[in-house]
Amino acid sequence: MLFLSEQDMKQSVTMKDVIDAIDDTYHVYESETFQAPERMHVQDGDNTLLLMPCFTGDAIATKLVTIFPNNQTHPTLHGLVVLNSNETGEVKGVLNGSFLTGMRTGAIGGSAVRHLAREDAASLAVIGTGTQGFYQAIAACTERPIKHIYLYNRSNEKIEAFKSSLLNWVGKAIQVHPVSSPEEAVNDADIVITATTSKDPVLPDNPDLLKDKLFIGIGSFQPSMREFPKSLYDIADVVMVDTEHAIAESGDIATPLEKEWVTEDAITAMSRHIASGTEFNSREAGTVVFKSTGMALFDVVVANLMYQKAQENNVGTRLSM
Amino acid sequence: MLFLSEQDMKQSVTMKDVIDAIDDTYHVYESETFQAPERMHVQDGDNTLLLMPCFTGDAIATKLVTIFPNNQTHPTLHGLVVLNSNETGEVKGVLNGSFLTGMRTGAIGGSAVRHLAREDAASLAVIGTGTQGFYQAIAACTERPIKHIYLYNRSNEKIEAFKSSLLNWVGKAIQVHPVSSPEEAVNDADIVITATTSKDPVLPDNPDLLKDKLFIGIGSFQPSMREFPKSLYDIADVVMVDTEHAIAESGDIATPLEKEWVTEDAITAMSRHIASGTEFNSREAGTVVFKSTGMALFDVVVANLMYQKAQENNVGTRLSM
Repeated sequence: MLFLSEQDMKQSVTMKDVIDAIDDTYHVYESETFQAPERMHVQDGDNTLLLMPCFTGDAIATKLVTIFPNNQTHPTLHGLVVLNSNETGEVKGVLNGSFLTGMRTGAIGGSAVRHLAREDAASLAVIGTGTQGFYQAIAACTERPIKHIYLYNRSNEKIEAFKSSLLNWVGKAIQVHPVSSPEEAVNDADIVITATTSKDPVLPDNPDLLKDKLFIGIGSFQPSMREFPKSLYDIADVVMVDTEHAIAESGDIATPLEKEWVTEDAITAMSRHIASGTEFNSREAGTVVFKSTGMALFDVVVANLMYQKAQENNVGTRLSM
Repeated sequence: MLFLSEQDMKQSVTMKDVIDAIDDTYHVYESETFQAPERMHVQDGDNTLLLMPCFTGDAIATKLVTIFPNNQTHPTLHGLVVLNSNETGEVKGVLNGSFLTGMRTGAIGGSAVRHLAREDAASLAVIGTGTQGFYQAIAACTERPIKHIYLYNRSNEKIEAFKSSLLNWVGKAIQVHPVSSPEEAVNDADIVITATTSKDPVLPDNPDLLKDKLFIGIGSFQPSMREFPKSLYDIADVVMVDTEHAIAESGDIATPLEKEWVTEDAITAMSRHIASGTEFNSREAGTVVFKSTGMALFDVVVANLMYQKAQENNVGTRLSM
């Protein structure tokens, strides 16, 4: 059995590899050659354990996530992915699930940048400088020649650490600007990524500031959460979701549908777009909204990639059962 | 995070430690200070993935088991236990779940021997020489001065390997006798353990052969499986189950109830017996039947014990996430 830490995975795969795996996942999703039962949810007071198994033709993976919202000195979320062979059932790998989730969620955004952003997009706004925002920024920089990143967070505490980790990864050629309002972050950005758990829109409700940009919403994963304002839907030329699951799961799709700011017909699934092989004309697309909520299928495909790459590169800790 | 292999666990705990933990588990069960939701079952053709989470006041453990019935060269079952802190949610340990299950199931039988067998019980019959039968034999020898073990299995293939592994563990002072019929195995035995997955009784339906012995049934964990014959219930003076769950889960309890060979009033839960602190008069108990189906609570208590003992003894592989 192979154990892969964050460090091991960083040594084995690049963000580009993971974005490629996300694109592969969309094909698996459309081919329906997988099984992802509804996740199991165990509640113990304020604390939660989530169990998310998924079978594909290539592997079986189960992601275990604990959410302890009252943690003070420890992270709120802890994750582990157990990878089993789909030929014999034996345990092939155990992977740091927090890092894997960060990379795969970043890569879902990165895939959206790859397929939907203008080729020359050079500036990026990131609203929410938590773990998810970090990997989103890395992924966007992987796919476009980003020169400026504008960072906004409700509290200032984490922003300097975020900036220095980001520079450390993407290199000094990119300028990172902490700013003091979402307006300022969005103003000069070609691509805007929101990665907060806000219940109320975090972007300015001002069409002039939002027009002709690509918006990637990562934060809202429950109907009660919402990051995008009404005017974004008023001016949106394209509204995409990663998979149809996002329609019911995210308040950034469910609420606009309910309030009729958008119709279900106007929403395209990225899985379908990629499987269709049609070209997206990013130069003339206007205002584009992409909303992701993720699903266990992304985890199993990425976990299996991590495992294979680590094997090839002789990385990780091999353990005898 | 600490990884514990079979070898690590063997170095950290004795079977007696695990039997003590099983007795502790019965107290936890009766105090109702735990949460064990119904296990999650994912089916993929003939193959199965089971996810069994359990929370106690001390730990959170999730057992993941794959069952691939068509495996030829690999074992049919593979198991892993993930242990999380119940204070922060972080992953404390990953343990070989197949070995842990063998030890804890053995120890459930061992606890029954401890509490129900005559002090001078010196001979043991084991019907079914698979993995579970092996740990049952070890556990019985831990609790009573066993001199002779009679082994019966439907096929002869595995019996010699079983004998030599057993001698290796229990020492040469115990004589191990492979026999050619269940009658022969039971005849001279004080304690009879059945550990098969049979759908039809594996013991002789002959009260003269069964009288005044202790029977421990481990194999039947589904209503369609049954190891004990009708006459055993006719002569039984005591019928015990590990927990009330066994009543619905095992054909060795469900079928006798349905056919009115025994009444529900006549069935005692070991958890209640142990929690009550009453003495069991094994010398005058007559014919005693104990049926176990296990549950996730046993796994979490034993996994936490393994983890703590390994920490104390500085055993296992410490991994950085």
